[in-house]
Amino acid sequence: MANLSNPHVAVVGSSGAVGQEMIRCLAERNFPLSRLTLLSSARSAGKTETFRGETITTQELNRDSFKDVDIALFSAGGGISKEYGPIARDAGAVVVDNSSAFRMDPDCPLVIPEINPEDIQKHNGIIANPNCSTIIMLMAITPIHRMNRIKKVIVATYQAASGAGAAAMRELESQSRQLLAGEPLTMEAFPYQIAFNAFSHNSAMDVDSGYNQEETKMIKETHKIWHDESVAITPTCIRIGTFRAHAESIHLELEHPVDLEAIRTALSGMPGVSLIDDRSKNYFPMPIETSGKDDVFVGRLRKAAGGSAERELELFCCGDQLLKGAALNAVQIAEHLIQK
Amino acid sequence: MANLSNPHVAVVGSSGAVGQEMIRCLAERNFPLSRLTLLSSARSAGKTETFRGETITTQELNRDSFKDVDIALFSAGGGISKEYGPIARDAGAVVVDNSSAFRMDPDCPLVIPEINPEDIQKHNGIIANPNCSTIIMLMAITPIHRMNRIKKVIVATYQAASGAGAAAMRELESQSRQLLAGEPLTMEAFPYQIAFNAFSHNSAMDVDSGYNQEETKMIKETHKIWHDESVAITPTCIRIGTFRAHAESIHLELEHPVDLEAIRTALSGMPGVSLIDDRSKNYFPMPIETSGKDDVFVGRLRKAAGGSAERELELFCCGDQLLKGAALNAVQIAEHLIQK
Repeated sequence: MANLSNPHVAVVGSSGAVGQEMIRCLAERNFPLSRLTLLSSARSAGKTETFRGETITTQELNRDSFKDVDIALFSAGGGISKEYGPIARDAGAVVVDNSSAFRMDPDCPLVIPEINPEDIQKHNGIIANPNCSTIIMLMAITPIHRMNRIKKVIVATYQAASGAGAAAMRELESQSRQLLAGEPLTMEAFPYQIAFNAFSHNSAMDVDSGYNQEETKMIKETHKIWHDESVAITPTCIRIGTFRAHAESIHLELEHPVDLEAIRTALSGMPGVSLIDDRSKNYFPMPIETSGKDDVFVGRLRKAAGGSAERELELFCCGDQLLKGAALNAVQIAEHLIQK
Repeated sequence: MANLSNPHVAVVGSSGAVGQEMIRCLAERNFPLSRLTLLSSARSAGKTETFRGETITTQELNRDSFKDVDIALFSAGGGISKEYGPIARDAGAVVVDNSSAFRMDPDCPLVIPEINPEDIQKHNGIIANPNCSTIIMLMAITPIHRMNRIKKVIVATYQAASGAGAAAMRELESQSRQLLAGEPLTMEAFPYQIAFNAFSHNSAMDVDSGYNQEETKMIKETHKIWHDESVAITPTCIRIGTFRAHAESIHLELEHPVDLEAIRTALSGMPGVSLIDDRSKNYFPMPIETSGKDDVFVGRLRKAAGGSAERELELFCCGDQLLKGAALNAVQIAEHLIQK
């Protein structure tokens, strides 16, 4: 059994964009760990990281990596999670997995700690961290759902490069430099130019339905986290040339008439959510102000215009894709594990 | 009376981003004009432009500028239009105005030539060019509305810097350079950083409703162009760091069940609209491919996911804000004027 009072924690994929943030979150939140092991591919093995003043050398991930590990935070892609997640679990660790590998597995809880912490304890050794767009949306709309049931969600995303990893963030930067210098573009991380552009999310598309995987994740993961498949969710996932904070424009159809003041109060009382909703100053959530922040920011709260607007609510939210959308949420799950 | 068979055309605001595109459209479309006069503020007067091999010197706009002018294309801001539009009209010109000054005036038709050309002939000397986001949306959805009435529109925009003028486009470029060089940002055209960011549209907001002017324009102008105030339209207008093509994610609630094939056929048959809707290649409309193009591009056509999806349609469209969103539409209106 994993020692959850003073655990040995491993970060798998520690050199990636999310892995780096996991290390930072563990340090900043004073996570009570007895030892930190950093695991990565052969290419990144040997790299050193400073953690609480201590230098830790990254090791190459192998089947024996998890011998004394109590909690393993995975963020190295679905393939690595599928192969090494069960190995880590069988070695006695509790796995918190940031990939999509186990999210829809009925044996694996899918958790946003502010929303369904009770699901954490139902784990069988693997707990899944939801998709970034799902987390950011649900942080913003769950407080509303709890007071006035959401029947329908129409959401359009403005997703940052970081969702495709550190190489994609570098590509946004390098393409921007190339375009400003009039040089030819290099295109590796994304199928289309990301600098000064917007394009439909680059995950595989179901040709029959016309929905890509990112959109399908937002639908299915919401149903699982809310334990409610009756909510109709229609996402359109779009990438734009921002670095690390996703934004989402959300339309909600509610069961009862919109009470804006009550909704503002509910959002203000939600841990991990901050309101930025200043109509008089035209000041609302923005990716650049959200980057590096733990909270999901919510604003542009208003009734829909026209029609059956009494029961329809609009909002705009932003969340740091690497933090609450990935690393922070995983570390928060681990914090709940050690509290029990 | 204006001579509309071989007109003397004036462009007011000829040195602006839209004015420059107006000159280009007139040249490229071989607009049958007898003479072109370029008018601008004192600051830009004296500048020369080449038009069909001829050098034209920009003159300073004044009350006597319109003496022999038959058609005056205005794009110098609402204040200039309000002051000089009536002067041009009273001097005998037909005014095509790209500002918001006359759009909601019941005496002024508001026209997208592919949609309501019949309204052009109802003018009393001033014809208004709609807002760019309205034009781009209506080009994409009017063919659908004509075959299966649209009851509700939920739209989220991804708007380019060009909508705020040439200085705003330069600001996107200069801020990008500054950020990549680690230098302090200059912020003049926009209230917030536009490079690598997204923010709620910088038009004045109605504090009571929570809608900004850009959003209100999309609602009211659609009602006027369609001659139908019963359509419920809820826009969320967001600026992103692209240069000159707007994108829009649109959800439609229709009167009858969605027939995707019939909708594709209708869109393919719409002048000024091109379908880019390749699910198997994940290839859809993008701002960078739309820039400099006359057409509005439409894709991601699909039924809504879940719920009452039978009557709900999703799509994503892009249009060049300076061309179909402004200059081209104005020149097309002028072309209709001279054809009659």
